Amino acid sequence: MTLVSSLTAPTTDALLARYQAVRHQTETLCRPLLPEDTVVQPVIDVSPPKWHLAHTTWFFETFLLGQYQPGYQVFHPEYAFLFNSYYNSLGSRVNRADRGTLSRPALAEVYAYRAHVDARMQELLSRADTLPEAFWEVLELGLQHEQQHQELLVTDIKYILSTSPLAPAYLPLSSDAPEAETGPPPVAWLPVPGGVYRIGYEGPGFCFDNEHAPHETYVADFALQNRLVTNGEYLEFMRAGGYADFRYWLGEGWDLVQQQQWQAPLYWVERPEGWFRFTHHGLRPVDMAAPVTHVSFYEADAYAHWAGARLPTEPEWEIAARRFRPEAADGTFLESRSFDPQPLPATAAADQCHQLLGDAWEWTYSAYHPYPGYVRAAGALGEYNGKFMLNQLVLRGGSCATPESHIRLTYRNFFHADKRWQFTGIRLAR
Amino acid sequence: MTLVSSLTAPTTDALLARYQAVRHQTETLCRPLLPEDTVVQPVIDVSPPKWHLAHTTWFFETFLLGQYQPGYQVFHPEYAFLFNSYYNSLGSRVNRADRGTLSRPALAEVYAYRAHVDARMQELLSRADTLPEAFWEVLELGLQHEQQHQELLVTDIKYILSTSPLAPAYLPLSSDAPEAETGPPPVAWLPVPGGVYRIGYEGPGFCFDNEHAPHETYVADFALQNRLVTNGEYLEFMRAGGYADFRYWLGEGWDLVQQQQWQAPLYWVERPEGWFRFTHHGLRPVDMAAPVTHVSFYEADAYAHWAGARLPTEPEWEIAARRFRPEAADGTFLESRSFDPQPLPATAAADQCHQLLGDAWEWTYSAYHPYPGYVRAAGALGEYNGKFMLNQLVLRGGSCATPESHIRLTYRNFFHADKRWQFTGIRLAR
Amino acid sequence: MTLVSSLTAPTTDALLARYQAVRHQTETLCRPLLPEDTVVQPVIDVSPPKWHLAHTTWFFETFLLGQYQPGYQVFHPEYAFLFNSYYNSLGSRVNRADRGTLSRPALAEVYAYRAHVDARMQELLSRADTLPEAFWEVLELGLQHEQQHQELLVTDIKYILSTSPLAPAYLPLSSDAPEAETGPPPVAWLPVPGGVYRIGYEGPGFCFDNEHAPHETYVADFALQNRLVTNGEYLEFMRAGGYADFRYWLGEGWDLVQQQQWQAPLYWVERPEGWFRFTHHGLRPVDMAAPVTHVSFYEADAYAHWAGARLPTEPEWEIAARRFRPEAADGTFLESRSFDPQPLPATAAADQCHQLLGDAWEWTYSAYHPYPGYVRAAGALGEYNGKFMLNQLVLRGGSCATPESHIRLTYRNFFHADKRWQFTGIRLAR
Amino acid sequence: MTLVSSLTAPTTDALLARYQAVRHQTETLCRPLLPEDTVVQPVIDVSPPKWHLAHTTWFFETFLLGQYQPGYQVFHPEYAFLFNSYYNSLGSRVNRADRGTLSRPALAEVYAYRAHVDARMQELLSRADTLPEAFWEVLELGLQHEQQHQELLVTDIKYILSTSPLAPAYLPLSSDAPEAETGPPPVAWLPVPGGVYRIGYEGPGFCFDNEHAPHETYVADFALQNRLVTNGEYLEFMRAGGYADFRYWLGEGWDLVQQQQWQAPLYWVERPEGWFRFTHHGLRPVDMAAPVTHVSFYEADAYAHWAGARLPTEPEWEIAARRFRPEAADGTFLESRSFDPQPLPATAAADQCHQLLGDAWEWTYSAYHPYPGYVRAAGALGEYNGKFMLNQLVLRGGSCATPESHIRLTYRNFFHADKRWQFTGIRLAR
Repeated sequence: MTLVSSLTAPTTDALLARYQAVRHQTETLCRPLLPEDTVVQPVIDVSPPKWHLAHTTWFFETFLLGQYQPGYQVFHPEYAFLFNSYYNSLGSRVNRADRGTLSRPALAEVYAYRAHVDARMQELLSRADTLPEAFWEVLELGLQHEQQHQELLVTDIKYILSTSPLAPAYLPLSSDAPEAETGPPPVAWLPVPGGVYRIGYEGPGFCFDNEHAPHETYVADFALQNRLVTNGEYLEFMRAGGYADFRYWLGEGWDLVQQQQWQAPLYWVERPEGWFRFTHHGLRPVDMAAPVTHVSFYEADAYAHWAGARLPTEPEWEIAARRFRPEAADGTFLESRSFDPQPLPATAAADQCHQLLGDAWEWTYSAYHPYPGYVRAAGALGEYNGKFMLNQLVLRGGSCATPESHIRLTYRNFFHADKRWQFTGIRLAR
Repeated sequence: MTLVSSLTAPTTDALLARYQAVRHQTETLCRPLLPEDTVVQPVIDVSPPKWHLAHTTWFFETFLLGQYQPGYQVFHPEYAFLFNSYYNSLGSRVNRADRGTLSRPALAEVYAYRAHVDARMQELLSRADTLPEAFWEVLELGLQHEQQHQELLVTDIKYILSTSPLAPAYLPLSSDAPEAETGPPPVAWLPVPGGVYRIGYEGPGFCFDNEHAPHETYVADFALQNRLVTNGEYLEFMRAGGYADFRYWLGEGWDLVQQQQWQAPLYWVERPEGWFRFTHHGLRPVDMAAPVTHVSFYEADAYAHWAGARLPTEPEWEIAARRFRPEAADGTFLESRSFDPQPLPATAAADQCHQLLGDAWEWTYSAYHPYPGYVRAAGALGEYNGKFMLNQLVLRGGSCATPESHIRLTYRNFFHADKRWQFTGIRLAR
Repeated sequence: MTLVSSLTAPTTDALLARYQAVRHQTETLCRPLLPEDTVVQPVIDVSPPKWHLAHTTWFFETFLLGQYQPGYQVFHPEYAFLFNSYYNSLGSRVNRADRGTLSRPALAEVYAYRAHVDARMQELLSRADTLPEAFWEVLELGLQHEQQHQELLVTDIKYILSTSPLAPAYLPLSSDAPEAETGPPPVAWLPVPGGVYRIGYEGPGFCFDNEHAPHETYVADFALQNRLVTNGEYLEFMRAGGYADFRYWLGEGWDLVQQQQWQAPLYWVERPEGWFRFTHHGLRPVDMAAPVTHVSFYEADAYAHWAGARLPTEPEWEIAARRFRPEAADGTFLESRSFDPQPLPATAAADQCHQLLGDAWEWTYSAYHPYPGYVRAAGALGEYNGKFMLNQLVLRGGSCATPESHIRLTYRNFFHADKRWQFTGIRLAR
Repeated sequence: MTLVSSLTAPTTDALLARYQAVRHQTETLCRPLLPEDTVVQPVIDVSPPKWHLAHTTWFFETFLLGQYQPGYQVFHPEYAFLFNSYYNSLGSRVNRADRGTLSRPALAEVYAYRAHVDARMQELLSRADTLPEAFWEVLELGLQHEQQHQELLVTDIKYILSTSPLAPAYLPLSSDAPEAETGPPPVAWLPVPGGVYRIGYEGPGFCFDNEHAPHETYVADFALQNRLVTNGEYLEFMRAGGYADFRYWLGEGWDLVQQQQWQAPLYWVERPEGWFRFTHHGLRPVDMAAPVTHVSFYEADAYAHWAGARLPTEPEWEIAARRFRPEAADGTFLESRSFDPQPLPATAAADQCHQLLGDAWEWTYSAYHPYPGYVRAAGALGEYNGKFMLNQLVLRGGSCATPESHIRLTYRNFFHADKRWQFTGIRLAR
């Protein structure tokens, strides 16, 4: 199996602890929700939290308990139909657009499903040393998969709550108010000399199959900005008429601007007292020093055009990140529970590269295609990544909704160019 | 105001009791639901129960408290946007198709809204003798309106629960199992001589504006069947290839049969052991002696063609109902909490006309158009009925989901020809 | 066969002459067109003229030559697929929306098809006295059918030419300019006493099956206006904000006004020098004295609301027309080749009922449903009318595009409420 | 201006001859068409030939006559609206989907437009030595643009004629029947060593802006097949169940296979006597030795998966083409007027790389993105290519519908992955 790099099996105790921590983290994220919040699907991209809770559980049930636990009986025979996401190998399933039409199983039943699977998983893990390497690999994949859904939970919860004119808060704002807007440091261009570089994941530990195979690539001389574009900088683009001038836009992007009447990033609302944005803490003033997020690729690209720059390619991003990463590690991750990218302090060193990991996914102008030497795995898990390798763009670096232990410099995320509900931001290249 | 007939104001106590009874009935219907069930909108016709609970409350708040309670402050300023159904006079509102995307306000908040409005309404009713006749009229309208939504709650809950492959029961089946299928009595044709008849509502008491004005109409000799078409009779049509022969169908109906792959009434499922249907008690065997329901107008009309008969017109139905009604009153209504039409006993008199009220709405082959002399009221309540008077068909007689105190022989219900989620059935004429 | 009333077979010569005259009229209408004009289908309702030319021919080939001409070989085996309009009995056919995608058969081939069928029809007609009554009936139906398509040709050609910004004229305007706008006479209300009347077609000669059976109907006292509503009167409604006030509109109509941005009847264009409309002679100033046309039912109904009146029902229209018809026959028909309704002279008698036949189809507020006693014929011709009897409204009286020999007081035309490309107009009742 | 490489102005006579030759070639292609064929747009991708004839003319009128001919009056003021394709800089235009609804201007008027512009262009060219370099550049662009539309004319005409069940031939099949199917030579893999290569256009002469800037790229060792995949080889994939097994397909491709019921390449039809395909000569048996065409990217990629290989990337294709091109130049181009890719003779050298130019566009697994250093030109011509650089795939090598003088090894064509109406084929890499 080529899905993951070879792993040394950890101790049972360590693994069980990790399993429990990841599973627990998911439930912690859902705890502030009401049952009503866990059912709806306001747009096709946003799945009901109840579905995430169950689907991640179904993954362990299907790929581990069903394979390695002798005589395992599924919790409910219909759950494979209800909670399979997209695996053709595993049969028919609820149409994706209909996930939000199902009130049952109820939230409590889904938690019972989680508890049932967790109990059986703990039994299995207690005798894990008898299981083959393939087991360890899929277990790790299941945990990484659940972390991916944690990020989706954060962004889907935000979207779900945003649709109500009541602008409900997921969590109250913590009392320690953010510091004054003194940041960020000025923009600087960090140069990278051209040449042949090696990218892609190498070494021990987990990676997704799409980070393989590591390979050489050539880039010309380029420079990358030292930090993410801020809300304040993006507002200049808006004020300069960026959304009204087709010359900055790709053709499909311009069509969307007109059809969808885009005037600002997703979640921005103009009030007499200024610009606000919907956050996990309800409607809040836009922090001009913080990185802009919830922009589509089209907006990121139009901003870059307007600014006289461009978006980096995927190899440029990774090459620069490997080069500059040691100098600055100041990202915001899921574990901070801030649920918003944070402004850099004004004192951050301008000659270092900030926010490479965390805060906001960075759109690259590279298609999500297979790397040279990429091979889809056989069986259902071969559908995990490979079949999506068209018409999407690579994003890099993780966001404030990404678990810190989940992200890597070689991590390839991907979305269609029009998507805005993730914490997607902009870093310029030239 | 022409919406309702002139009413004598009842005593405050009687009125308060009636107000509380109607409001209580709505909540009783929702009690078996989980919060998750109250949020979703699987198709545009089916509104979330939470929405029904709030919208009916908004009606009293807007048309009574806002008008007659001095200094009344609305419970929440956004609720007018959230819970206005279709009144252009009252401003913009949530797009109907988006009702199921809103998880907030939560169910508990909606109940708090109901309690708040009920408390203020009781204050208002305690001094009701000081209020003008218009108040009494709109109060009655509000109660009738809430009863209409009780019927919709019954049918929408059924649809919502039906979408899950778990086939959850709204209520457990009561232990007193239905009697053996010995009914119904054989079909008989009850003749009505042609002539000029008067139809429409007359006299004291409440009616909807669409039952006005009472007027003469001419019908030729005709005959009506003594009872509703049963599931068993409809199954004969199915077995005779009714869904596969375009000759029985109106053009639009035939297109739908092909597009939607209709093979049976809504909720029917074929199993190796026979036909089942989804009910409020989960999946149950089809009772062949019970009236067929959940058929569209197209299916009702095709069945009639196949049977060598036709559907009655609206005047025919009312004329016959007024003529035969005294002889038999054996319908099933909401209050029975059976949530399904019931078979007639085999011993029911074949020469009487059964099930005219209750059990199943009866499709007529009459368009829902204004009666001669119909006038839309001024103001927002003029939008209650009048603007829908096109491209829908009249149904008569109420169903097992209709409150018994709500239905009348002159009552005009209306749906588009393709709708199947109401308890709609068939009575033949010739 | 119940499609047509019993006919006395005319002499062969007379019939042949009539056949040739009708067929020739169709080709005369198409003569000013370029081949390019005969292919396109700018909206689904508008069929390519080439299709009309072929479909009417296919009707004779299929229902007469194929039935009564021994050994007849079809002109081309694919034409049944290409030129069947909607007869399920006759198998599959080109999707209606795709008629405008077919450049072949070319126009010249279609004319060759017409010539071929005409030659064989003349052979058949020369021995017509040997043929059964059913032959005569279907022949008459074929001729009436072709006349219906002549009207559609006129309106479809208008729509096709209108889509080009070049505003090309179908025909040059004749030199005899219309007289000055002195008409029409003032509006007058012509009363009709209530009672039981008989409507529907009776007697010898042809009628469509939907005019059967003649039957009694009751109407209350009512009055009908003495003439059609004019463009000038309709402009008053526009200027009074008629298109901006939802209170005048049915719900579906108001939705359309918003979606389609309707501000005026179809084909109206506002220029600095006033209102113009596209006609068969290109863009022309709106003649304020002429009847308004190209309005949907929704617009007609909203106009009536605004004017404090209403649209007549179908029985009212026919009863009044039978009563008043003898007094005035001043309509404009296809044969005038004016292709536009004409203003009444100011001197027309105000106490007579004008324009009942010709000029503009008059929307009634009656659904197109079967008359009592209506029976669909067996076989393919049973699909001619019956399967369309839902969700459409009856229009009466014919228009300036209707052949004069084709129209009758009992003639039932029908369109969906949103259609505007026919010459549809307004007569008020109260 | 960066659109084209610097050009030495040729002599007036040579240039005039070339202008006339290109313009004449377009009209030659349209000569076999009937006026009816030039109007329709059966799907949005396929423009009416009449539109191509006018749009290419509008290009010269707008970008040359309007700029360089003093006092030039446009032929018709509405033509800019009618025949602008997608230039936002030049104002509003007919919705692309509506091109096939316009019967006017008629074909003859469009030819008159061409003659008018050609006459004025010849005047302008006669004094061309007085015009600036920018003129020469745009003139060359206009001629290359017209050649692009010649290819589209060939493919659009094919699609248009294919929609009729009459399967009309654009041209009769020439008498010299194709030789017996003895080809092609066996497949061979031609290896290319990895390393840094330079790709993109360099040197004098014309290229499109998207071929700039020339730049280095790194590829690993790879091999390319010596020829295109044949119909016979593709049929093996079909017979092996290729269209029924999701494992070979990208996710979006599999969805399309199901929705569109794809079972074979576009234009293939199965008959009892075997597989046929619609061609410019009507329906013809599939030549198993000829290259497969009219496959989408999804089909090309699925075929490659099934065959245990993959599609080349764009750099691989160009690097290999530059390396192997000298050895074999045996492509079929527009000038051959065969309108179909031709089989290689069995005697073709297996160790050479055949059909790199001509016959069929070769899908690459590379997104159509800007090259490093690409800059959009200012002004309307900056919209020529740059705004389409997303969500499309690069195709290389030209086809049997490409003018031979138009294609180059560096030429970048691009289409969406689902398109099948171009002559698109498959060459494998590994």
